[in-house]
Amino acid sequence: MKSDELFALLRRRGVLWPSAEIYGGAQGLYDYGPLGTALKRRVEDAWAAWFVGLSHDYHLIEPAEILPEAVVRASGHLENFTDPEVTCESCHAVTRADTVLEKIRPEGVDGLTPVQIAEIIQTKGARCPSCGSTSLSVPRPFNLMFGVDFGVTGKERAYLRPETAQGSYLSFARMWDVGRHALPLGIAIIGKAYRNEIAPRQVLFRMRSFTQAELQIFFDPAGFPVPFDRVREEMLPLLRVPRREAGEETPELVRAGSLVDSGALPEFYVYHLAHTLRFYRDVLGYPADRIRLFEKSDTERAFYNKLQFDVEVRLESLGGYKELGAVHYRGNYDLTRHSQGSGKDLSVHPTGRDALLPHVLELTFGVDRNVWALADTHLTKEGERTIWKLPPYLAPVAVGVFPLIDKEHSEFALGLVDELAFAGIPTTYDGASSIGKRYARMDEAGTPFCVTVDAETLHDGPARGTVTLRQRDSRTQERVPAGELTTRLLPFLRPPRPRRA
Amino acid sequence: MKSDELFALLRRRGVLWPSAEIYGGAQGLYDYGPLGTALKRRVEDAWAAWFVGLSHDYHLIEPAEILPEAVVRASGHLENFTDPEVTCESCHAVTRADTVLEKIRPEGVDGLTPVQIAEIIQTKGARCPSCGSTSLSVPRPFNLMFGVDFGVTGKERAYLRPETAQGSYLSFARMWDVGRHALPLGIAIIGKAYRNEIAPRQVLFRMRSFTQAELQIFFDPAGFPVPFDRVREEMLPLLRVPRREAGEETPELVRAGSLVDSGALPEFYVYHLAHTLRFYRDVLGYPADRIRLFEKSDTERAFYNKLQFDVEVRLESLGGYKELGAVHYRGNYDLTRHSQGSGKDLSVHPTGRDALLPHVLELTFGVDRNVWALADTHLTKEGERTIWKLPPYLAPVAVGVFPLIDKEHSEFALGLVDELAFAGIPTTYDGASSIGKRYARMDEAGTPFCVTVDAETLHDGPARGTVTLRQRDSRTQERVPAGELTTRLLPFLRPPRPRRA
Repeated sequence: MKSDELFALLRRRGVLWPSAEIYGGAQGLYDYGPLGTALKRRVEDAWAAWFVGLSHDYHLIEPAEILPEAVVRASGHLENFTDPEVTCESCHAVTRADTVLEKIRPEGVDGLTPVQIAEIIQTKGARCPSCGSTSLSVPRPFNLMFGVDFGVTGKERAYLRPETAQGSYLSFARMWDVGRHALPLGIAIIGKAYRNEIAPRQVLFRMRSFTQAELQIFFDPAGFPVPFDRVREEMLPLLRVPRREAGEETPELVRAGSLVDSGALPEFYVYHLAHTLRFYRDVLGYPADRIRLFEKSDTERAFYNKLQFDVEVRLESLGGYKELGAVHYRGNYDLTRHSQGSGKDLSVHPTGRDALLPHVLELTFGVDRNVWALADTHLTKEGERTIWKLPPYLAPVAVGVFPLIDKEHSEFALGLVDELAFAGIPTTYDGASSIGKRYARMDEAGTPFCVTVDAETLHDGPARGTVTLRQRDSRTQERVPAGELTTRLLPFLRPPRPRRA
Repeated sequence: MKSDELFALLRRRGVLWPSAEIYGGAQGLYDYGPLGTALKRRVEDAWAAWFVGLSHDYHLIEPAEILPEAVVRASGHLENFTDPEVTCESCHAVTRADTVLEKIRPEGVDGLTPVQIAEIIQTKGARCPSCGSTSLSVPRPFNLMFGVDFGVTGKERAYLRPETAQGSYLSFARMWDVGRHALPLGIAIIGKAYRNEIAPRQVLFRMRSFTQAELQIFFDPAGFPVPFDRVREEMLPLLRVPRREAGEETPELVRAGSLVDSGALPEFYVYHLAHTLRFYRDVLGYPADRIRLFEKSDTERAFYNKLQFDVEVRLESLGGYKELGAVHYRGNYDLTRHSQGSGKDLSVHPTGRDALLPHVLELTFGVDRNVWALADTHLTKEGERTIWKLPPYLAPVAVGVFPLIDKEHSEFALGLVDELAFAGIPTTYDGASSIGKRYARMDEAGTPFCVTVDAETLHDGPARGTVTLRQRDSRTQERVPAGELTTRLLPFLRPPRPRRA
């Protein structure tokens, strides 16, 4: 499906829609409806189960989203978190420089200075995308953070966090004190981040308020022990820089073990890259042949990142590979900056070691983008039918319970809904229209199991107390005792977890 | 425990701490650590299970937290969401008018006009709380919303939402289209709200960024059918306005049925008030004798509220009854305003009825305040021990698994942790120090169950495969097959739900 068609379907089904729709919407803001909210929550839970579940020493926290100015000054965001924008002197439209240069320079403007961009705009005859004029201003840096006037005096300035990661760096000292004084220590955050994007677009891909899930692992650069044997044979779909420079778009499969044996990448990094791949492929269920691990070059990645692979998935709706997450080796940049900015020495003394400033491995994940990608990749059409083939543990509604005839079978069916809900199984009741139409509604909503209560359920006979259990993907139907549903379905409704290190 | 002592304990245990602590903190912002984040999440889940679980037609959504200016103009927040503040002309401190008048007028300044407040300040000789001067400015309204410059032109203004409820009103039309075109329709939101409080204080009670859980039930004022018999015999601890005016502080128990029979309150309102009481008393487990339902008078409640009872719980740490939630009958004020503001007619046509603008019953719940109140009311000292007697389904960690001797029993214990975690049971591993100390750590963290793996677990004999299960509150210990733990514990770890209407 194309983006427009997919968005229309998601809007019609109440998965998501533009925010403040009755006021004409607010650019770059979206609301999640009932199905979208449930899906998003399950994606977040699956992420936490997998990544926070990697170690007993990884923890989820929830810091405030507002950062005092001193924090974003130290982190570098106040100075550097900018996109170059140009103003059209003819029609006054404000545009991102990379949008202006889209046709002339498809590789984007990352890493270029404003002066270099200005030169390209002038020499290549770039035009305003709105009116076509060539009278474009010199690009100026536009800070993407939303500032807020904090407090009553009007003199304190604060910012909505542009990334959740800062909360982990700010909390590191407290988490060290509270914890068992050992590295590695992982601090995860799932929450909102805010960016005043110059050109919000592609629905959930460039939003002004969006949800990130990020895990910062603080470790001793002298040694980050991992049970590498668990991933040694994993085949990673890499697109490394030399191959990219040769014009290749498709990844090549490289054995995890060989990357380490050859010294190409550090063991701890490959271990986490492999677990990241498994999450996207085995937990979220993206088709393996659509995933690539895309290495960023020196000029593309932030200067403090020593290594960066983006996880990209090929999406039909957006016409190509899109970044859904990344694995960043950030060194000790952040703790260094916050040590300087706060005046508090953030180095630590693990038992039996000299004091050190830990390095950080950052696993980052765009929740909204993945919600969209799960619609793109898992919504399929089979003839007249639209089926959202989500893994059962991600489905917004796990079970649809139907009375065959509403008036006769609803009491039993409603009792069953309550019973399943109490067992923690997200269940919905649908008593309207034909069974076929109800199945179709559930298929489109991604519900993996449907249960129908009928006359046989209620009347004396061999089938008393049994219901029809129908599976979405196989369309098989079988007769099952209602009392066994919970035990039978629960194992499918728990997100996978790695064994812990 | 007093507030300071309680906060120190929560900080030491990693439940919560001041945000951006290494930078000296940010007034009115707090971070939740691992235990706090888990507790908060479970409180939110319990709220959703209970209130969204009240009906098949109640749904949870997640709208954006940024509202365009047109929205807050229509809602009245731009004009009216203010607190009166005064500036000291001597020391320049800015103070809320009610703080200045705290001693002179303990009932607060709600409902007074700025002119009336100015008069009291002048005639009663109010003093600046900072320097004691009587040179105080005329009170001026201070808008509590955080404005943000939205978009790139600097001309669009937007606001961080001051309450989650607005998202439900904005989404009502879409939710009606998506749904089954029937009233009542419930729209719930759990998420952040932001207020630039003039005087943030009492830790989680007046924060600048806080979490609300709110359910807006849209209904036909001609009839809101509820299964009232389910609550008829419930005894409600009411403190109504006449009793308050007579100087009473303690509630009186009134039977739900008698309130309706006497025509004192509408049936639908009492039904939801009773379910609200049950949530605080039976789900969150506040002691019944500390809860009161506090009626707000005409002058105290917002002018559009036809009825308002606050749920108040008596907290030792804050020295009295504190508001933790409320039940508001808002009429059709909000939909009327947004119909006018957006130009979109928000009235609906339920099957077989004329078009109407629904009324709204709002159930509101302060998540952070309840996290604090759950610490205040459930943390107990028994001799040397601190025990956090949380209901098992609210406990941040449900099970602590210990190897009796770390080197010998850790493999089995770690396997058990993974097994319980996969079954959705929040489990932690602790291999350090004596069993007694480990029990004490778990007691303080609120963990209801501890499991110890020892030599008997591993060696041939009648106890092979069994572990010691210890319960927090009873301190009983018994030998249980490890394989039965999941089945045995899961029923205690699901929050209660009402039967659905």
